[in-house]
Amino acid sequence: MAQDVHADRAVATAHFADRLAEQVERKRSQLVVGLDPRPDLLPVELKGDAHLGREHAADACARFCRGLVDAVAPYVVAVKPQVAFFEALGADGVRALEDVAEYARLAGLLVIADGKRADVPSTARAYAAAYLEPRAQASVRGSGPVEGDWGNREVPPARDALAPLVDALTINPYLGRDALEPFLHACRRHGAGAFCLVKTSNAGGADVQDLALSDGRPVWQAVAALVADWGDDLVGDHGLSSLGAVVGATHPRAVGEARRLMPKAVLLLPGVGAQGATPADVARAFTSGPASALVTVSRSVIYAFRTVGAEWRQAASAEAARLKREVWAVSGW
Amino acid sequence: MAQDVHADRAVATAHFADRLAEQVERKRSQLVVGLDPRPDLLPVELKGDAHLGREHAADACARFCRGLVDAVAPYVVAVKPQVAFFEALGADGVRALEDVAEYARLAGLLVIADGKRADVPSTARAYAAAYLEPRAQASVRGSGPVEGDWGNREVPPARDALAPLVDALTINPYLGRDALEPFLHACRRHGAGAFCLVKTSNAGGADVQDLALSDGRPVWQAVAALVADWGDDLVGDHGLSSLGAVVGATHPRAVGEARRLMPKAVLLLPGVGAQGATPADVARAFTSGPASALVTVSRSVIYAFRTVGAEWRQAASAEAARLKREVWAVSGW
Repeated sequence: MAQDVHADRAVATAHFADRLAEQVERKRSQLVVGLDPRPDLLPVELKGDAHLGREHAADACARFCRGLVDAVAPYVVAVKPQVAFFEALGADGVRALEDVAEYARLAGLLVIADGKRADVPSTARAYAAAYLEPRAQASVRGSGPVEGDWGNREVPPARDALAPLVDALTINPYLGRDALEPFLHACRRHGAGAFCLVKTSNAGGADVQDLALSDGRPVWQAVAALVADWGDDLVGDHGLSSLGAVVGATHPRAVGEARRLMPKAVLLLPGVGAQGATPADVARAFTSGPASALVTVSRSVIYAFRTVGAEWRQAASAEAARLKREVWAVSGW
Repeated sequence: MAQDVHADRAVATAHFADRLAEQVERKRSQLVVGLDPRPDLLPVELKGDAHLGREHAADACARFCRGLVDAVAPYVVAVKPQVAFFEALGADGVRALEDVAEYARLAGLLVIADGKRADVPSTARAYAAAYLEPRAQASVRGSGPVEGDWGNREVPPARDALAPLVDALTINPYLGRDALEPFLHACRRHGAGAFCLVKTSNAGGADVQDLALSDGRPVWQAVAALVADWGDDLVGDHGLSSLGAVVGATHPRAVGEARRLMPKAVLLLPGVGAQGATPADVARAFTSGPASALVTVSRSVIYAFRTVGAEWRQAASAEAARLKREVWAVSGW
C-alpha cells in the first residue's frame, strides 16, 4: 500500500500537460467525460435507497461514477467530476468525490475537478491545498506536519502524504492573477494543471465576457491574453502549458480565436452534446498539437441510457467510443 | 425536534435582506466575522490531535469556530465561514462546516457562506441546492422526494426537510445572469441571500475588474450595474435587495461609486483589518440605510489572541466589540 501511494506521488509530480499529451497520444483520444451525478437521473437499479437521505444518495452517485469510469476508461484521457453535484450532497457527497477521484486515478485516468474556484490569495491557497497539493493521511498517527498548513510557510508534504485529490482544477479569472497564483504554484511544484474560464458555453456568459473594451476586444479576449501570459512559464516538453483554458464549443468562431490568442494552452471545450455543439465545431482547436484541446462531454454520455434504452454502462461506453473516434478524426491527427 | 426544524424553515422563508435589516437594527451592528479556520494557527489548546490527520484537524477547526461564535455573537449580525478552509480538510472539513453553520444559526446569527460559486445554469442549480435550499434529512426513512433533485422539475421540499445550510452565499459574476439565476431563484423562493463579487479587495482584482470598457467605465462598474438590475425584483420591505455585492474596503473611492451604482444592494465589505482598510474608509457605504452595508473582518478578530496575548475567545470578543462600535459610529446611524 505504502508503495502504491509513493508511485502515485511520483506520477503526480511530472508536468501536467506532458502527462496529458502522453495519454492523448497513447489512447488516440482527446475526450473527457464529465461526471455529473444527479440522484434523480440515476439508473433505477442504483437509485435503490437514494431516496432515504443524502448518505444513501451519495453512495448511489459514487457507484454510478465508478461504473462510468469502468465503462469509458478505454476511450477517454480524463474524467471531469463536477464538484457542485457532489457538494449538493454535503459531506457525504464530498466523501463520494474523494472515492470517485481515487477510483479514476487507479483506472489510469487523469482527473479534472470542475469547481471553477477562485478567491483572494490567502484563501485561494486553501483551495489549491484542497485539490492540487499532496494531502495528509486521514487520521493516521505521525503523519508529519499539521494538516492544512496552507499559510505563508512552505511545508514539505508528509512522508506518507496521499496524492493530490485531483490532477487539475477549473478556475475563474475574475479575481485576477494574484488570486490564481496558488494554483499556478501547484502546477509548478506538484505537477498539477488548471483550466481558467475564458469564454463559457452558456448564453449568459456574454453578459460580462462580451462587454466591449476600449481597444475593441471583448473582455474574454483580454482574459485569453492574460491566461496565455500567466501560463507562459508552465510550458512542458510537448509545447503545452499546464494552465489551460475553458472555451465553450457552442461558440465555434471563439474557439478559433482562442486558439490564436493562447497558442500553448490546452483548450477544454464543453458544450458538445446536450448543449448543442458538434465535434466539427471545434476542429480548429487542435492546431497546436493532438493534446492541445480536449472535448468534454457529460450528459449525452453518462445519461445515454435514458435515450437509447441500453444498459447504462454499455450506453455510456458506446457513446464515448463513438465520440472519441469522431473527435480524433476532426482533430486531423 | 420536528417543531424546531419547522421553526427554522419558517424563519428561512422570510426575505433575506429584511431579516438582515431587523438584526442590524436590533443589535446596532453591521459587523460580520469571517470564520477562516487554519489548523496551523489554532490556539495551542485546540491544536491537540490536529496534527494526527484531517478528521482531528476538522474537529479542532469546528471547536475553534463554535468558540468564536459564542465569543462574537453579541456583537455581530452574521458569521461568514470561508468555504475554502473547510474544503481543504475534505469531507471531514465539510462536516465541520455543516456543524458550525448549524451552531451559528442556533446562536441567532445569519450565516453567509463565502464560496464565490458560479457555474453554467444546470450546474449552478446544484450549488444553489447545496447552500441555499432546504435539504433532505441525512439518511432518514421516508423523507419524501429524492435528495438532490435539482433538475428542471420543481419539487416541494420534504416535510421534514432541514433548513438550508446557510442564509446567503457569495457568487461570481463572470458567467453572467443565467448562471446566477438558480441563486436568485433561491432568494425569491426560500428567503435566501446572495452577494455577487463586484470589486474585490485583492490587488490582482484590477487585472480583469479594472479593464477599461469602450464607454469609459471599468469592467467592475458594468458588473455593478448588472447586479443592480438582477437584484431589482428582490427588494424587501426595508428597501434593500437580497442580492448584495462584494466591494473591497481597500478601495474607498470604489465603495462610494458602488453605493451610487447599486443603491438597493447590501454591500459586503471585506478588507478591514489584516488587509489594511479602516472603518472610516467605508463610511459612505451606509447611505442607503443602517443595513445597507456590512463590514466583514476575519483574521484581525479570530486570530487576535496571537497578537494581543489574551485568551483566544476573550481576544476575539474584545476586538469584535470594538469594531462593532467603530463601524456603527462611522455609519452615521
